[in-house]
Formats: sequence, C-alpha cells, structure tokens
Amino acid sequence: MSTSDAVLVVNSGSSSIKFGVFDASHTDPALLCKAQIDEHEGASRLVFTDPAGRASFALEQAEPDASPDRLFADVLARIEHHLGERLRAVGHRVVHGGREFPRPVEVNRTVLAVLDALTPLAPLHQPRCLTPIRAISAIRPELMQVACFDTSFHHGIAPPVNRFAIPRHLERAGIRRYGFHGLSFEYVAGRLADISPEFSAKRTVVAHLGNGASLCAMRNGRSIDTTMGLTPLDGLVMGTRCGTIDPGVLLYLQQRHGMSVDDLEQLLYHQSGLLGVSGVSSDMRVLLASQEPAAKEAVDLFTFRIAQQVAAMAGTLGGLECLVFTGGIGEHASEVRTQVCERLRWLGVQLDPSANTAAQLHIACEDSSVDVLVMATNEEAAIARHCAALISGT
Amino acid sequence: MSTSDAVLVVNSGSSSIKFGVFDASHTDPALLCKAQIDEHEGASRLVFTDPAGRASFALEQAEPDASPDRLFADVLARIEHHLGERLRAVGHRVVHGGREFPRPVEVNRTVLAVLDALTPLAPLHQPRCLTPIRAISAIRPELMQVACFDTSFHHGIAPPVNRFAIPRHLERAGIRRYGFHGLSFEYVAGRLADISPEFSAKRTVVAHLGNGASLCAMRNGRSIDTTMGLTPLDGLVMGTRCGTIDPGVLLYLQQRHGMSVDDLEQLLYHQSGLLGVSGVSSDMRVLLASQEPAAKEAVDLFTFRIAQQVAAMAGTLGGLECLVFTGGIGEHASEVRTQVCERLRWLGVQLDPSANTAAQLHIACEDSSVDVLVMATNEEAAIARHCAALISGT
Repeated sequence: MSTSDAVLVVNSGSSSIKFGVFDASHTDPALLCKAQIDEHEGASRLVFTDPAGRASFALEQAEPDASPDRLFADVLARIEHHLGERLRAVGHRVVHGGREFPRPVEVNRTVLAVLDALTPLAPLHQPRCLTPIRAISAIRPELMQVACFDTSFHHGIAPPVNRFAIPRHLERAGIRRYGFHGLSFEYVAGRLADISPEFSAKRTVVAHLGNGASLCAMRNGRSIDTTMGLTPLDGLVMGTRCGTIDPGVLLYLQQRHGMSVDDLEQLLYHQSGLLGVSGVSSDMRVLLASQEPAAKEAVDLFTFRIAQQVAAMAGTLGGLECLVFTGGIGEHASEVRTQVCERLRWLGVQLDPSANTAAQLHIACEDSSVDVLVMATNEEAAIARHCAALISGT
Repeated sequence: MSTSDAVLVVNSGSSSIKFGVFDASHTDPALLCKAQIDEHEGASRLVFTDPAGRASFALEQAEPDASPDRLFADVLARIEHHLGERLRAVGHRVVHGGREFPRPVEVNRTVLAVLDALTPLAPLHQPRCLTPIRAISAIRPELMQVACFDTSFHHGIAPPVNRFAIPRHLERAGIRRYGFHGLSFEYVAGRLADISPEFSAKRTVVAHLGNGASLCAMRNGRSIDTTMGLTPLDGLVMGTRCGTIDPGVLLYLQQRHGMSVDDLEQLLYHQSGLLGVSGVSSDMRVLLASQEPAAKEAVDLFTFRIAQQVAAMAGTLGGLECLVFTGGIGEHASEVRTQVCERLRWLGVQLDPSANTAAQLHIACEDSSVDVLVMATNEEAAIARHCAALISGT
C-alpha cells in the first residue's frame, strides 16, 4: 500500500481514542485502515482493522503505562511501516475552538497555547484532545498537525440563539453558546446533501446520542441551534453528565450542602446523568437490559428530555420535517428511538417498527409527516476531509 | 361596611407588596378594597382603592423607615377601622412550600421555622414573604395567618418531568423541579374552567410574564410541567434573572473569573436577564420604547426563549391547543405577544392584530388552530379563596 498523501486521524472522545488512516490525495479521502487501543488484562494493544472492519493485526504495548510520547511514537512507527511511507499530516478532533477558531487550523506553538487556555470550557475533554497533539509534536516536530473543532460547525449560530441572558461584558468575554459534536453533525449534513438538495433543505434535527449527547437544528447544511452551550455539560441527559439543570441547584448545593466548585464539577460531569439517576450504569445497553425500576426511570428521563428538546429545536427551525438518529445510542438502541418518536407523535412523527428494529436508513412509516433516519456518524472522515483541503491549499 | 369574615391578603412579590381585603364568608370571596404602598419623595403612603380601582384614601407613614412591625400595625389598624371590625384572618403569598406543604397551611411557630429553612431555595423571595407573617404574628399573635404557596399548584408534576439528572440521594434530599407562580396559574385555571369544561380540557400553556416569568403546561386544571425549577432562577429570561443557562457557565465563572458563589447569586438574580442583555433596564416598557439596539436584542431574546419553551411545554402536553398570556407584561405588552405568536406560527398560532392591540380576552384569528387569550391574573383572589376554605373548615 502506498500513497503520497496519507493522513492519520486521531479522535479522542470522552470514552475512547480512535485512529483512522486516510488517503487524502482526493477531496473525499478514502479510508485505508482504522485502529483502536484495546485494553485487555492490564495490557494495551493497538488493533488495526481494514476498511471492511476485519482485524488485520495488533501491536502489543510493551509497557501498559507508557507515556503519551512513547505510545504515539509506537503508533506512528507502526502505521508508517504498514503504509511503507511517511504520513503527510495528522488530523485531530479538538472539542473546543472558542471564538478563535471558526474553522480547522494547522497547529503551531501559538495555536496550542490558545487551545490550552480553552480547557476550562471543556475540562473533561479538552486535555484529552491536546495530549496527542503535544506528544506527536514532541517526537515529530516537522509533521503537519491539523486541529478540527467540535465547535466550528455551529459557528454561524446567530443571536438570540447563541446568547445567554447575562450582562454584555461577559458575552464579550466569550460566554455564549458554542455547541459541540460539530464534526459528527457536519458529516451527517453531508450525507443528507448526498441524498438530495431537497432533502438537505428540510427542517432537520439531528440527535447525536452517545456517551455525550446533543441535538443540532440544521437546514441546508448549516447549524442554526444546538443543545450544548459554552461547555459540553449543557442540554440533554448524558451518560454521567446532568445536561440542562436549574442554575439555582448549583448555588444551592454550594450554599447548603457545603460543596466546593470542584466537588460540583465532579458531581455534574461524572456522577450525574444516566448513572446518577439509575444508580446502575452510565451505559445505555446495561440500562435497557436491567430489571431495576431506577434503570427504566433513567431511560424515561433520557428520552423525555430528548423529545422535549427536539420540540424546542423545532421551535428555532419553525417546524420539523426530518429527524436523524446517530451516535452509539442513536444508531444501536432501537428502544430509545421508539420512546423518543412515541413522545414526538404530536409533531407527526411515526415510526415503522420493523424498519426501526432493523435500523434501516429510513425508519418512518409512510403516514409520518416527518422523515426519520438512522445514520452511522463518521467524525474521522470529516477530519480527513479538512486535512485534505488544508494539504491541497483549498 | 361590615362583614363577619374579612380577610386581609398580603402579596409580597419580587418588586412590590400588595394588599387586598376580601369578604371570605363565601367560597368565592368578594373584594372589599385593595391597598398598595406607594413611595413618593421619600415618604411612603398606603393607598386604598375600592374594587373599581378608585383611590379612596391614603395613609401617610409618619416614619418612612418604619420597622415591619410598625408598618403592619399601621396597616392592620387602618384596615380594621375602615371595616369597623377585626380581621378574621390574614392570607399570605409564600413563594416556596418545598415538599412539606402541598397545600395552604395555617402558620404557627413550627411552620414558620420550616418556611425559614426553605429560604436558600428562593433567596430573593422567601424572606420578603416571611417578613409580614413574622411582623403580624408579633403584634397580633392571636390572628389566624394562612400561608399559600407558589409551589402547591405544581405539586402533582410527576417524574420524569420534575426530575433533574442528578444522583438519587440529592433527589431524596428535595432537589427537584417545584415550579412557582402557582397562585397565578391556579387563578387562570379557574377562569378557563369558568369558560367551559371543554375549554379547561385543552392542552394549554399559560405564560405568566412579569418581573418574574414562567410557563405552566396545564390540562383540566392541573399543572403537568413548568419552566421554573427548584428555585425561581430557572426557565425564561426575566427582568434581572438569567433563566435557563448552561450549568458549565456557573463553574466557569467561579473557576476562571474568580467569582464566589455569592457573587454568582448576585449576578444571576440581580444583574442578568433583560437588564443584563440590554444594559438599559429590566422594565419591558422602557425596553419597548427604547431606540437602543441592545434593548431590541433583549426583547428578541425574551420572546425567542418564551416561544422555544412553549414548544418544549407542548412536548410534555403532546400538543398545543390554547395559549394564555398573563402577568404585567403578558397583559399589557401587545408587542411581546405579537413576537411570541409570530415565532409560534409553525404550531398553528395566528393572532388577530386588532384584538391583540385591544388586549381582548380572545386574540387569535379565526384560522388559528390554537386559542390565544389575554387574562389579568389575580393571586389575591386565589389566596382569599384558600382562606375562606380554611375558615369554613373545608
């Protein structure tokens, strides 16, 4: 295998790190192989799979607690050996681009410092995104690295939608709705446009439901509203995050329960959401299989809040013509789709139960006034496309 | 004027204190007179008006900075002189009844202690409600006092609607959605039932828009969802309160802007909302009359968030058949109603512009699939009714 423009894509999510190698010599880069770090009995292995998903070979990590520099040196060496050539660039998913980065950017020392300063906006995620960039830059300073942001796709969201009701000097200091999961929403927007321009023009809400979860109201490939805010703590109920909550609760917990702000961050990011309500698990598969009433109640709250926020997003769009489910839960949990759509029946949403169980692309029944789709998202492909554009200088 | 069951109603809102005297010898008490404290050139006067709204006489306060005991002793003496008899009871609007008080209650020392302990849930409002109770109990310990709660009407809201996505032990400690403005919503529910049982059965959202603002989703006279939460800080944009905001913003302001929790409370309760966004005023009349772009933007955000949350409430109701505007802004700002209804056109809401300008009871045009009403609320009448029921022992 050989190509002149191989790029490595590094996707550091909140629960895993995924790699993809693409041939970026075309505007629509082709996947060459994928890799994922697999932890097993204390040892970590880098498992490569071909585009069809067949595991091709595995790299055993000598030291399970290897430093990031060592880990990424291993990954790069193995991939380049596999390719028979050097990588042209590495593209990274970076959660927060703030106001500074409305589009992907080549990373240098200055850029990295700005990205570092955005960490308090996404304390759970930003450091995980920056670690690989820093490690690769230490071992391969000459290698082009590209940061692609989860916030960029939402950059066009305009007031009043992106505004919080706080004094203007705080808004000028950057406190406003940014939104996240932008690479996923961008990929889905591209696939809707592939169906047809008419389809892309529909008033669409995309539900990215994974360990993190958010909605995007979009039309003609542009985001016009989203449920996450300044930080990825806002909006829907998530695996361990609370989503939208009365701000008075935060004041109350500090004033009456003696919690510090760090306690509160720990509580609301790591101990809340599906885990907090169920007391069982943050994993939707576990909750759906559980007989515990609290597990069922957590799923109820999850789907109630999705349906309620879909209605709110439809408000921004002025209607609802298309609903797309994506992300791990969105793609695989037909029961969650059933509950959400049942709660949205008043907006004309009607599922075809067998199409839903089979997770077909179109899962609405013929009478439904709203199209309902299930799509696998592909953040890595979106990143590879941005790398290809930067390499070719377009 | 003489009656055997005269009750005084004290309504301590966030921006004013209002009194009403009712003949509570019937289940539907009749208003005898109203009073309001009027501050003018450093002196405060208690101005009485008859039920038709004509100012009948005014009591000059000798000391403008009189203690609450002195002030309420004056008010009681003057009212009883006017009536020619002693009051039978005093009914109070109390903002927070917590889980403890699902219905109005006669106040004693134990009740007062519980109400005091709820202050952190409504730090701006609860003390103002308790001051008159405490003052009257000091000067007239034998006089029956009744606390009527803004939370009671929402007591039947069930999970998942009243649940936050936080660990169960915090929910058991009382951290859940209570909702407020219940006396106003209860009064409006009664008036809808007066129209007809069929009208009361409609999927209805009531928008109480005043200095504080919230929505109630109701059907058949029962609240099933509301926008305020544990505290009256949640939900819509208000005069000086932020309403719903990414909880990550609170963490960020403390971690990066060095704000204390008390600073944050001050910011989000007193410096945000319409005042914070406009930089001009918290008063809707001033904003609507202003030429400042920021004033227009504050109104835009206000109406955007109302429409978005009406859609969310419609989600809980499974549709929208009736929308009611009440509260100072809801009753008097036809421009606000116009903007909100314009944003809700996709749900079939269509105003009759001239009926709207005239603030008629019914302001939707014939083609509208949603009834739209304007109603004056009357929290005092709701309180008087509860007093009458407690006096008669029903």
